[in-house]
Amino acid sequence: MTDVAIKKTNPESVSLCPLNSAAATEPEPLCIFGTGDLGRSLGQRLLQSGYRVVYGSRKPHSCGPLPPGTQAMSHSAAAQSAALVFICIHREHYNFLETLAPQLQGKVLVDVSNNLKKNLYPEANAEYLQRLVPGAHVVKAFNTLSAWTLQNGPSDANRQVYLCGNSAEAKQAVAETATKLGFTVLDRGSLCAARELEDFPLQLFPEWRLPLRIAVGLTAFFYFYLLIRIVIYTYVQKGDDISFRIMVSLANKVFPIVSLIMLSLCYLPGVIAAFLQLYRGTKYRRFPDWLDRWMLCRKQLGLLALAFAFLHVLYTLIIPQRYYVRNRIAGSTILLIKENKTSAFDSALAWRSDSFLSTGILGFGLYVLLGITSLPSVSNALSWREFSFVQSKLGYLTLFFCTLHTYLYGWNKFLKPTSYPWYTLPGYLLCLIVPTVVLVLKFLLLLPCMDRSLTRIRQGWDRTNKLETQMQ
Amino acid sequence: MTDVAIKKTNPESVSLCPLNSAAATEPEPLCIFGTGDLGRSLGQRLLQSGYRVVYGSRKPHSCGPLPPGTQAMSHSAAAQSAALVFICIHREHYNFLETLAPQLQGKVLVDVSNNLKKNLYPEANAEYLQRLVPGAHVVKAFNTLSAWTLQNGPSDANRQVYLCGNSAEAKQAVAETATKLGFTVLDRGSLCAARELEDFPLQLFPEWRLPLRIAVGLTAFFYFYLLIRIVIYTYVQKGDDISFRIMVSLANKVFPIVSLIMLSLCYLPGVIAAFLQLYRGTKYRRFPDWLDRWMLCRKQLGLLALAFAFLHVLYTLIIPQRYYVRNRIAGSTILLIKENKTSAFDSALAWRSDSFLSTGILGFGLYVLLGITSLPSVSNALSWREFSFVQSKLGYLTLFFCTLHTYLYGWNKFLKPTSYPWYTLPGYLLCLIVPTVVLVLKFLLLLPCMDRSLTRIRQGWDRTNKLETQMQ
Amino acid sequence: MTDVAIKKTNPESVSLCPLNSAAATEPEPLCIFGTGDLGRSLGQRLLQSGYRVVYGSRKPHSCGPLPPGTQAMSHSAAAQSAALVFICIHREHYNFLETLAPQLQGKVLVDVSNNLKKNLYPEANAEYLQRLVPGAHVVKAFNTLSAWTLQNGPSDANRQVYLCGNSAEAKQAVAETATKLGFTVLDRGSLCAARELEDFPLQLFPEWRLPLRIAVGLTAFFYFYLLIRIVIYTYVQKGDDISFRIMVSLANKVFPIVSLIMLSLCYLPGVIAAFLQLYRGTKYRRFPDWLDRWMLCRKQLGLLALAFAFLHVLYTLIIPQRYYVRNRIAGSTILLIKENKTSAFDSALAWRSDSFLSTGILGFGLYVLLGITSLPSVSNALSWREFSFVQSKLGYLTLFFCTLHTYLYGWNKFLKPTSYPWYTLPGYLLCLIVPTVVLVLKFLLLLPCMDRSLTRIRQGWDRTNKLETQMQ
Repeated sequence: MTDVAIKKTNPESVSLCPLNSAAATEPEPLCIFGTGDLGRSLGQRLLQSGYRVVYGSRKPHSCGPLPPGTQAMSHSAAAQSAALVFICIHREHYNFLETLAPQLQGKVLVDVSNNLKKNLYPEANAEYLQRLVPGAHVVKAFNTLSAWTLQNGPSDANRQVYLCGNSAEAKQAVAETATKLGFTVLDRGSLCAARELEDFPLQLFPEWRLPLRIAVGLTAFFYFYLLIRIVIYTYVQKGDDISFRIMVSLANKVFPIVSLIMLSLCYLPGVIAAFLQLYRGTKYRRFPDWLDRWMLCRKQLGLLALAFAFLHVLYTLIIPQRYYVRNRIAGSTILLIKENKTSAFDSALAWRSDSFLSTGILGFGLYVLLGITSLPSVSNALSWREFSFVQSKLGYLTLFFCTLHTYLYGWNKFLKPTSYPWYTLPGYLLCLIVPTVVLVLKFLLLLPCMDRSLTRIRQGWDRTNKLETQMQ
Repeated sequence: MTDVAIKKTNPESVSLCPLNSAAATEPEPLCIFGTGDLGRSLGQRLLQSGYRVVYGSRKPHSCGPLPPGTQAMSHSAAAQSAALVFICIHREHYNFLETLAPQLQGKVLVDVSNNLKKNLYPEANAEYLQRLVPGAHVVKAFNTLSAWTLQNGPSDANRQVYLCGNSAEAKQAVAETATKLGFTVLDRGSLCAARELEDFPLQLFPEWRLPLRIAVGLTAFFYFYLLIRIVIYTYVQKGDDISFRIMVSLANKVFPIVSLIMLSLCYLPGVIAAFLQLYRGTKYRRFPDWLDRWMLCRKQLGLLALAFAFLHVLYTLIIPQRYYVRNRIAGSTILLIKENKTSAFDSALAWRSDSFLSTGILGFGLYVLLGITSLPSVSNALSWREFSFVQSKLGYLTLFFCTLHTYLYGWNKFLKPTSYPWYTLPGYLLCLIVPTVVLVLKFLLLLPCMDRSLTRIRQGWDRTNKLETQMQ
Repeated sequence: MTDVAIKKTNPESVSLCPLNSAAATEPEPLCIFGTGDLGRSLGQRLLQSGYRVVYGSRKPHSCGPLPPGTQAMSHSAAAQSAALVFICIHREHYNFLETLAPQLQGKVLVDVSNNLKKNLYPEANAEYLQRLVPGAHVVKAFNTLSAWTLQNGPSDANRQVYLCGNSAEAKQAVAETATKLGFTVLDRGSLCAARELEDFPLQLFPEWRLPLRIAVGLTAFFYFYLLIRIVIYTYVQKGDDISFRIMVSLANKVFPIVSLIMLSLCYLPGVIAAFLQLYRGTKYRRFPDWLDRWMLCRKQLGLLALAFAFLHVLYTLIIPQRYYVRNRIAGSTILLIKENKTSAFDSALAWRSDSFLSTGILGFGLYVLLGITSLPSVSNALSWREFSFVQSKLGYLTLFFCTLHTYLYGWNKFLKPTSYPWYTLPGYLLCLIVPTVVLVLKFLLLLPCMDRSLTRIRQGWDRTNKLETQMQ
């Protein structure tokens, strides 16, 4: 039912042929070693796609319920009956395959195994298998799919089958089976890519770890910093309980701060790298590891910064709905009446408030644009010149707008003594440090002299041994 | 012109070679059966890509205007002159091809036909064609493209050519032609996938039907329910006409209700399935059809829920701009003055209002995150572990925040008798039922005992015949 | 380090094998002509992927620092030692290759070159190379990647290697190398696609130029127009300086105007084309160039319109936070008090204000939907029937909502003489012209008679020579 449903819905799904017609088109059977969960799921799927399936099992007569229409036999018998063998066994039990080497001679072995942890073993499972059965053509495939997917067909994160192996023919054979099962095949090259494919399903946003830690750290720090500065200070000094501000006011001070800092952190490494290259006078020396690692998570830093900016926007737009704000506005109006004043209009203040809001909006607009262009499908459609134009040029413009937005927010607050309770700096001042540094450094790099020599270095020029650039 | 323009713009476009140079690289001509619209569009395109084209026609001398540079001849003559034949004829007229079997022996026949309705015929057009001309290699291709695309080159939804067939060589030949026309080729396997490819262009969001019906149904129901409760009740009881509330106030009550219910509906089937598996003690028995179908449209349910949430956010943020609201606020302030009160500040109320807004914002933020990760290109870039982490873990967090948001909205309203006009329950209470149930059930599933046995079952363990899990 | 990091993070990255094992799988070396920047970057990468690399150089003994483990020899010697030769030389220096023709006989030559400008030369570099060395199999590849990418592996806009060439085997060989380097390969057909691939890295949003010019032009015009109407007029007539309005009020008048005009501009050509086809009675005559070019940038027009709409939404939602607005609201309340009035409630006004806001929100919601469906990955997943349903049907609905939104905004303002300072029309009236025209024309096309004949024409019917439609 699932499959039919899928079939109806998308052309990427598996096509179900009645077994007989399928038998006509696909006479030779496929063999599956192992009658465990994965083996059974895979077998069921292969059957539905019109293949004949035989199972190889240690105890063919007591290996539990197999999909109807399949049969279980001894490993060697099963191996002989098919050209393609799926190894659905834990790596721990591979060793017995060594004894089957003769029967597996020239067969295609599909290693679908995964490990529970990274780096459990010195070599990849597929490479180990190849070593055990040198005469066979080992192909690593299907391991990035969940057992659920193998049983129910392609779904969102499970459309693609990555495979790798040393024999092109073997890969082709596996690719065709995968295609019939409804998957898109991506060839990852020779068998030494197996380790990578085996690590893939284990990973949980590795490249997001560092940026997330930074984000959480900054958020926590500023939250407590402002909690002390604002809530606790007010309570201690004036005895007012304004703890309710924790929910919105504080959040709406912390989020923009973190967002701006992280945005600048994602442009800082580029600037550092440029100065390093200028200092060294060559681009052919590796950057220190920390810089490399930093450079590699710029995208994630930027996207997290966007997320915080997004929250900041929502928290800001919601302000007029807050009971506290409405109450305060009513209060102030009433006060004006009582004192029989009319509300005087200050044009300069209007200018400042409007510019503050405008820069914020334009900054956020560009922010969103950067976010959109870093969607895989969009960035794939761009030439790298276009991509770097958006991410670099527009990126710095975004940073500029957001920094200006913050300066306009602060304006002359820093002059008032009341801005320094317990001699602490206001949050917006702290968060302006990094972006300002980045913008200043970037400005220096844009000076003709700097720019010229940097360009030459990036084109391969080398101060030490005066290389000519043969190719830009 | 169009093509040149396309050519200038993207590398996915077709490359136009002057005929002569093309003739050099591609001497042999392609044949097109049928001089109808599709045949002419296709021919024009092939010419522009540097192919030579001959038409096979019933009446070669009176078949109307063909693209300049092509010639029309009898079907048999045309067939003999080319190795690759595009069949641009309605299925109804296929039968005459049977008589051409000898001339078509060993040729590659490209079936580009579509039907006007699904399931018009017992077998797919391409399979029917193969049966008529068993000696030829039938390949189903190009049928998912519009005639406009065939004439003007790849455009947004028309970049990919799906093909299927039983002969790898035939598919390769067609794939090369498609590539030269500027399309990306996706192999869908053997000819029994043809039915699917023929259904593809006919479909109009099939997997969205059910979720859309649910959404429309819920929206309609709650609209009328609240219309009666609020507008009509007020009119009947107090004689006030507040019908203007239909536009914003009511919409902004209905949208969040529908959104929350649909979000919970997209997590309910998963919970039900889990309990079903626990009850059955195995995962090897099929779920009832209704559950399968439900599970398959979870993504669509979620995205519609997001759409409603998005509208809810806009409707909420726009509130302060409403004439009605501004008027009411002014009114209340004036009243305070008149009664010579100052607006008293209630800290508890501030806490509640701010938490209410915060949970809403955070919930919506996560909502958007879920939406982004279900973009095809994003979910393809994720490992299924990452995908399920986002969609399941973060999904339940989203549901939790949104439910909490609604509880905070209701707060103690349910205590006031005025909340039950005509003994009807307020909308927010009705919409809290499903999400609360889902969250409670999910909480039960997270209890160690439940969780442990569920994990074992999902790993292939079977209560009835105590299977060992050989593979996670 | 970079590579390892990449390796850890995604399966699309290159797999690094120790040289020895690699040597086992890949015995024969690859040859690189040219020891410039690109040559060195490429060589380094190939080494890391386990290939052996030899350089061909004019002066093998003084060609600067090469990646450790590689050797430089004379061009002819290098050529003989490898089956695959990367040409990392400027086109200007190609001519000497003619003399190497014998040694390059039957070799695969990979042309990675780019030019500094478009149309510098009559023929593509790769075609020129093929002409110089007719005996070799030239493949154009890798030129769309940055040198940085070649050194550091696939990154956002650099995952895909486009290649083209006349020999399938040669392309296959290059494709395998590219795959081992971690890239996804896209075959663009025969060598006459080379020009296109060479232009690709040079382009900077070519299809966005025209739409951007239109957007900038409209924005500039309306900005000055409204500046005169509102700010300068007020200053001259009343002497009030309301220049602060430039930042928000004016922007928030200009953006919606430009957005609506551009949205209608992206549906106007379709309507024109339809009427042209009706008038001509055939679809087989080309449209005038301007119309073709216009049609091709509809998508960009629409996306820019969405961007302006997005800014309009943000500017609108921020209104209540503006100092000016708060001040004015307070002022009006105080005035009411002073004159001892209560704020009278006008139900009709409430209706209008709420409908105005509602249509705006719904219009924007649909706007966003259109934007999402034009993301490459989303539109690829749609059948063209689905795509055209969204982009056309929903598109016109969007246009309708936004136009209605503007009419509700204007309402009866146009009756007031004060709306015509210096006899100028208000902006919203000007911006309503185009969309109204488009909607009226579209409405005409939907009339049964018009619709029927248009459909027949689109199905290939031709008034002049009464063609039967053989294929829909």
